[in-house]
Amino acid sequence: MKVVVLVGGVGGARFLQGVKAALGLPAIGPGESPHEITAVVNNGDDVWLHGLRVCPDLDTCMYTLGGGIDTERGWGQAGESWTVKEELAAYGAEPSWFGLGDKDIATHLVRSRMLRAGYPLSAVTEALCARWQPGVRLLPASDDRVETHVSVDDPETGERRAIHFQEWWVRHRAQLPAHAIVSVGAEEAKPGPGVAEAITNADIVLFAPSNPVVSVGTILAVPGIRAAITATEAPVIGLSPIIDGKPLRGMADACLTAIGVDSTAEAVARHYGSRKAGGVLDGWLIHTGDSALVEGVEVRAVPLLMSTVDATARMALDAFELGGVRVG
Amino acid sequence: MKVVVLVGGVGGARFLQGVKAALGLPAIGPGESPHEITAVVNNGDDVWLHGLRVCPDLDTCMYTLGGGIDTERGWGQAGESWTVKEELAAYGAEPSWFGLGDKDIATHLVRSRMLRAGYPLSAVTEALCARWQPGVRLLPASDDRVETHVSVDDPETGERRAIHFQEWWVRHRAQLPAHAIVSVGAEEAKPGPGVAEAITNADIVLFAPSNPVVSVGTILAVPGIRAAITATEAPVIGLSPIIDGKPLRGMADACLTAIGVDSTAEAVARHYGSRKAGGVLDGWLIHTGDSALVEGVEVRAVPLLMSTVDATARMALDAFELGGVRVG
Repeated sequence: MKVVVLVGGVGGARFLQGVKAALGLPAIGPGESPHEITAVVNNGDDVWLHGLRVCPDLDTCMYTLGGGIDTERGWGQAGESWTVKEELAAYGAEPSWFGLGDKDIATHLVRSRMLRAGYPLSAVTEALCARWQPGVRLLPASDDRVETHVSVDDPETGERRAIHFQEWWVRHRAQLPAHAIVSVGAEEAKPGPGVAEAITNADIVLFAPSNPVVSVGTILAVPGIRAAITATEAPVIGLSPIIDGKPLRGMADACLTAIGVDSTAEAVARHYGSRKAGGVLDGWLIHTGDSALVEGVEVRAVPLLMSTVDATARMALDAFELGGVRVG
Repeated sequence: MKVVVLVGGVGGARFLQGVKAALGLPAIGPGESPHEITAVVNNGDDVWLHGLRVCPDLDTCMYTLGGGIDTERGWGQAGESWTVKEELAAYGAEPSWFGLGDKDIATHLVRSRMLRAGYPLSAVTEALCARWQPGVRLLPASDDRVETHVSVDDPETGERRAIHFQEWWVRHRAQLPAHAIVSVGAEEAKPGPGVAEAITNADIVLFAPSNPVVSVGTILAVPGIRAAITATEAPVIGLSPIIDGKPLRGMADACLTAIGVDSTAEAVARHYGSRKAGGVLDGWLIHTGDSALVEGVEVRAVPLLMSTVDATARMALDAFELGGVRVG
């Protein structure tokens, strides 16, 4: 079975662990399996910091599935230290609001060096994964530069300006009202190598319960990916990131608000839209107790809390079932 | 009094502490003084490692005079940790033979980012020194890329090829016989901003007891610097790096051998040559017990062991005296 999953960072990485488990693979590391999982990872959050290319979602997936993640924080590596960050602060080097750990910096050094030498991000990711062995194929949505920018009123000058998503998300903790969220470069971007092919040849395509705006939304903003999703013969099943009428992971509602979408399971499904009506969904898995009614989208309510790998695997199996595919 | 000192790394940094003390300045940090010390620092050892621009001699001077040096090792920062290096090794990233500490990496990140943004090395060095406050003006010999390469027989293939000085010095510990040592780019390089002016306006110019080939020699390989040295009205006094007939710091004799110069105080002085005969020296300070006879160069024997700041200050005062200048 060939499964393609569109994912963001923390939530996406956890969901991938569930998909692996649902297909008989270990949640961490590689394993023997007749099945193939391809994760199409958002890279709109990527940013140059201190001359280093940082890819938060790719790294969160890689560290999580490779067994290196700090499970409490959900991002960065376990046993991380912060010497470089402290020294950068001693130089007064900006920005100081982004948490670059020492271990993490080695990843960014390897990546930045390869990018500067001309390797595309997809090749760099493959090289980094040779160490981490995530057990799924991690593909950046695009090798082209796609960057999510957020239009805000500058807290000091009051002037409206666009800031990088990370500045809004990490520095301002999404507290600065967003007037718009734009995937800069997405229109001109091509899908990364293998992305469109994986979607076309998939038995099922899943949207992880990741941020529908800046994670899955940014991936879908690449025209060639959206086209592959609308054209594939595989069922496309989304998992709602809304639990009990609000986003499970804080701050996602700020993104929905910015694009004028209510933080409800139904509103998000309508935003994705039915494939029968030019949208991207065939099925929509919502949390028990939530409700959604969208013409042309088959909706099913199941528990959607990724509290354990088993619970998450159950979600993946429910998604398979809603899509009408069977494992094995 | 305006003193210009041509320096390399460890020995040069220690000598600068002595010059500071001789002029009533603290060996570490800034201080009030009517005197002005300009260090012209070798940057032929500089190297890109893991996408970071590393300037060993500039950093050794900066850390030593700014109070951050690891005094036991003589290079790198005190209390250094090695997390990034270990992680780079886990990725199999080469080269692995160069000791990049976590604290040190912050310096290289700031520098590399500024260089890539278009700032010249001199401006970058000034920015870094704003933190370290070395109490002397540290000027890179040149803002242009000058790189010392060493011609060796490849230990694996046997073929003759040029390797970067750091690969020869650090990886091979100068044990690979050197057929030639070349300052690549030196012929086309211009002196860094302020370097030629400082030499021209100096009351005295000193050569620290640094490596005469790859430290002082590389600085002098920049035509505009050599021209300023030959033309200045200030006396030019060298301090011999030879103690009891051999270089004080190991491996310097390998450099001398490579250029066909004996490891004696006299041979090194002859290599520098008298300013009266197209060379660069007026006076040559040698260690008690050593001897040197070079026409046109005034030689004096004094203790040249930089065992303490006081002993080193005494060396600087002896150099002033040999040059006929008086402090205060």
